[in-house]
Amino acid sequence: MLDTKLAQKAADNLKKVREKRPLIHNITNYVVMNYTANALLACGASPVMAHAAEEVEEMVSLAGALVLNIGTLTAQWVEAMLRAGKKANALKVPIVLDPVGSGATRLRTESAERLTRELSIQVVRGNASEVLSLAKKEVRTKGVDSLHSVEEAEGAAIALAKELKTTLAITGKVDLITDGKRIYKVHNGHEMMGTVTGTGCTATVMIGAFLAVDPDPVEATTTALAYFGLAGEKAALHAKVPGSYQIALLDALFSIDEEELRRGAKIEVVR
Amino acid sequence: MLDTKLAQKAADNLKKVREKRPLIHNITNYVVMNYTANALLACGASPVMAHAAEEVEEMVSLAGALVLNIGTLTAQWVEAMLRAGKKANALKVPIVLDPVGSGATRLRTESAERLTRELSIQVVRGNASEVLSLAKKEVRTKGVDSLHSVEEAEGAAIALAKELKTTLAITGKVDLITDGKRIYKVHNGHEMMGTVTGTGCTATVMIGAFLAVDPDPVEATTTALAYFGLAGEKAALHAKVPGSYQIALLDALFSIDEEELRRGAKIEVVR
Amino acid sequence: MLDTKLAQKAADNLKKVREKRPLIHNITNYVVMNYTANALLACGASPVMAHAAEEVEEMVSLAGALVLNIGTLTAQWVEAMLRAGKKANALKVPIVLDPVGSGATRLRTESAERLTRELSIQVVRGNASEVLSLAKKEVRTKGVDSLHSVEEAEGAAIALAKELKTTLAITGKVDLITDGKRIYKVHNGHEMMGTVTGTGCTATVMIGAFLAVDPDPVEATTTALAYFGLAGEKAALHAKVPGSYQIALLDALFSIDEEELRRGAKIEVVR
Repeated sequence: MLDTKLAQKAADNLKKVREKRPLIHNITNYVVMNYTANALLACGASPVMAHAAEEVEEMVSLAGALVLNIGTLTAQWVEAMLRAGKKANALKVPIVLDPVGSGATRLRTESAERLTRELSIQVVRGNASEVLSLAKKEVRTKGVDSLHSVEEAEGAAIALAKELKTTLAITGKVDLITDGKRIYKVHNGHEMMGTVTGTGCTATVMIGAFLAVDPDPVEATTTALAYFGLAGEKAALHAKVPGSYQIALLDALFSIDEEELRRGAKIEVVR
Repeated sequence: MLDTKLAQKAADNLKKVREKRPLIHNITNYVVMNYTANALLACGASPVMAHAAEEVEEMVSLAGALVLNIGTLTAQWVEAMLRAGKKANALKVPIVLDPVGSGATRLRTESAERLTRELSIQVVRGNASEVLSLAKKEVRTKGVDSLHSVEEAEGAAIALAKELKTTLAITGKVDLITDGKRIYKVHNGHEMMGTVTGTGCTATVMIGAFLAVDPDPVEATTTALAYFGLAGEKAALHAKVPGSYQIALLDALFSIDEEELRRGAKIEVVR
Repeated sequence: MLDTKLAQKAADNLKKVREKRPLIHNITNYVVMNYTANALLACGASPVMAHAAEEVEEMVSLAGALVLNIGTLTAQWVEAMLRAGKKANALKVPIVLDPVGSGATRLRTESAERLTRELSIQVVRGNASEVLSLAKKEVRTKGVDSLHSVEEAEGAAIALAKELKTTLAITGKVDLITDGKRIYKVHNGHEMMGTVTGTGCTATVMIGAFLAVDPDPVEATTTALAYFGLAGEKAALHAKVPGSYQIALLDALFSIDEEELRRGAKIEVVR
C-alpha cells in the first residue's frame, strides 16, 4: 500500500527546494557535470561544481548539501572530497555519496570505503553491485552498471546502513531506502532511464537537493527518488528514444508541480 | 532609443564570423565545454578546447581569439591560462575572460585578479557579483550565481574598466558594456536563459567569436550580446522548459540570419 | 557498386552489439565524454570512462574494446593511455585511437605517434589533416578541423596503414578505410554532422563497439561507419538545425534496426 503522508512530504520538499533554492556543491565526474547541473537547476536548486583543494572548504561553507561522486576519480580528487567532506561535517552540511563503479576496480572500491570511513556521510546511493561491493560481498559488475538486482542487495544494504550509521539507497526497478531500521521502497521510474548516461548520478544530486531542505535523510532520499522517478515516467510520455528522452527528463523535473508529485509519488513503507 | 548603426554592425559581425569561421581557443570549465563548443559551431566559428601547458602557446597562435574561463579552475589551469594569455598578447590575439564565481572563494577571486593583472585582457564578462568582487567591493554570491543586480554594479564596472584598461560587460536582465568612457546597454535576452547551466559562459564565447572579427572590443561585445540575447528570445518561442530550451538556444544561434539580427538587436547607447 | 555482403555484415554486427552489450572503456576528451557515452548506450554498448593510472589496467580487463582519444590530452593522460593500451594488448582487447588535432600542436602529433609506436593499435580514425600529420606530411589544420579532403590523404593512409600494421579510417564526405591492402569506402553520412561537436569522436566510439564483436578491424570499422553515417542521414530527416540534430542523431543510433541498416549501408569495395 502506498503511503500518502510521504507523498505529501515529497510535495512539501519540492516546494521547499524551489523556495530556498539551496546551493548544492558537487565534486563529481566529468561525464555528468553538465547534465546534473542542469537537473539541479530544473528542480529549483542552484548547482556549483568545484574540486580544487584550495577552494572546496570555502565553497561547501556556502552550500546546503555536498554531493561526492567518484565516477571519474583520481587520487587527487579523493583528497579534495575528503577535505570538503570534513568541512561539511564540521558545519553540519549533509553529504550524499555516489560510489560509481565501486566493485569494478580497487581504486573505486577503496576510495568509496575510505570516504565512508573518514567522513560522516548522511546518504549513500548506488546500484546493487556498488552497494554489495561496499558491504564486501562478492560482486559481478560491468564497469559502472550493476549485474545484480536490488533484491539481492537488500540484506547487505540493511546491515551496511547500520554499520556505517548512514542511509543507504539502492536504485533499480524498485528503489530501496533504509537506515537499517526503517525500510522504504519507491515504485516510481521508467526503463528508459537506463538508456541515458548518468541517470544514477542525477538521482544522487536530487537527493542532495532534498537533503538541503529535509533533516531526515531517509525521508529526504525517499521523496527525492519518488520525484526523480516520476519525472522519468513523465518524460516517457513525451519521448521513446534516448536523445529526446534525456531532454524530456530535464523538462519533466522542471514542469512537475507539487500537486502532481503528491498524486504521483509511489512510496511504500515496508517497516 | 535603440541604435540602428550598432544593430547593423551586429549583422555585419555575424556575417564575418560565418565567412571567416575563426578558430576560438578555449581554456574553460568542464561543465560547459560541450555546450560552448556547440554554441561556437552554431554561430559559425570553429572551437578548440586545449589546456595542456605544453600546447597552449601553439594552439593560441592559430586562433582568432582566446577565451579564459575559471569555472572549474585549479592552480595548474591558471598557469596554462597565463601562458596562453601571454602568447596571445604577444601575437595581438584578443582575450575575453569569464571570472566565474569570483567573489565566492579566494582562489577564484585571486585567480581572476591575477589574470587581469598579468595579462592585457580585451574583455571581461561576468555577472554583477563577479564584477563587484573584481572591483574589491563587498559581495554576496551564491556559488556562481549573482545576488546583485546589474544596476548595483554599474558604477564599479565603469571605474574598473578604466583601471584595468579593458572592456567590462555585466550580463543580467539588461546587459551593460563599458570601457570606462562609452556605455552601451543591450535589451535583448529572456528569463529562460537562467534555467540552463552555462548561459553566462556561452555569452562569453560569443564575445570571443565577435572579437575575432571586430577590432573594437566594446562594439564586438555589445553586438555579440545582442545576438546571443536575440537567440535567447527566439528559443523561448519554441521551448518553455529548460531541457528543450537548451537545445532551442543552439538552434536559434544557428538559424538567426543577418537581417533578423539587424531588426532584432536592441542596443542602447547611453554615452 | 555497393557491396551487399558488407551491408549484411553491418546488420549482423549491430545485432551482436545489442546482444552482447560489450563494455567499451574510454580514455577520452572532456568535451565529448557525455555525448559519446550516450552514443554508446544508444547503439547498445555499455560505456565506461576511466583515466586514473591506478585503475585503467583493471578497467580495460573488463572491456570489449579500448578507445583512446587525445582531444584534451595532457602528458599525464597519455601515460594512462599507454598503461591501459599495454594491458589491452596483453589481453588482446582491440584498441581504436582518435588522434584529435594531430598536426595542430607538437604535443598532439608526438602523443599520437608515440601511442601508435608503443602500442599495437587495431584502428586509427581521424580526419584527413590528422592522418596526413601521422604520415609526416605537411599539414594545414584549423585546431581540430581538417583543411584537407579525404582524397588528398588517401595515398598517405594506405602507406601508413602498411607501415603501422593497422587499419586506418579517414572520415569525411566519403569515408576511406584501409589496412594497406583492402580499401573500402562508405558513402553514408550527412553534412549536418559537421555542425555538432564531437561527431568524429562519436564515429570512433562506434568503431570501438563494433570492434568488440568483429575480429576483422577493416570490416568492423567499415560497418560501424556505415551505421553511424546512416544514423546521420536519418537524423537529418528529423532536424535541420544543430541542437536538435545532436539529439536526433542519438535517437537515430538507437532506433535504426538491423534491416534498416542492411538496406541503408552504402559500402563500396575499392579493392
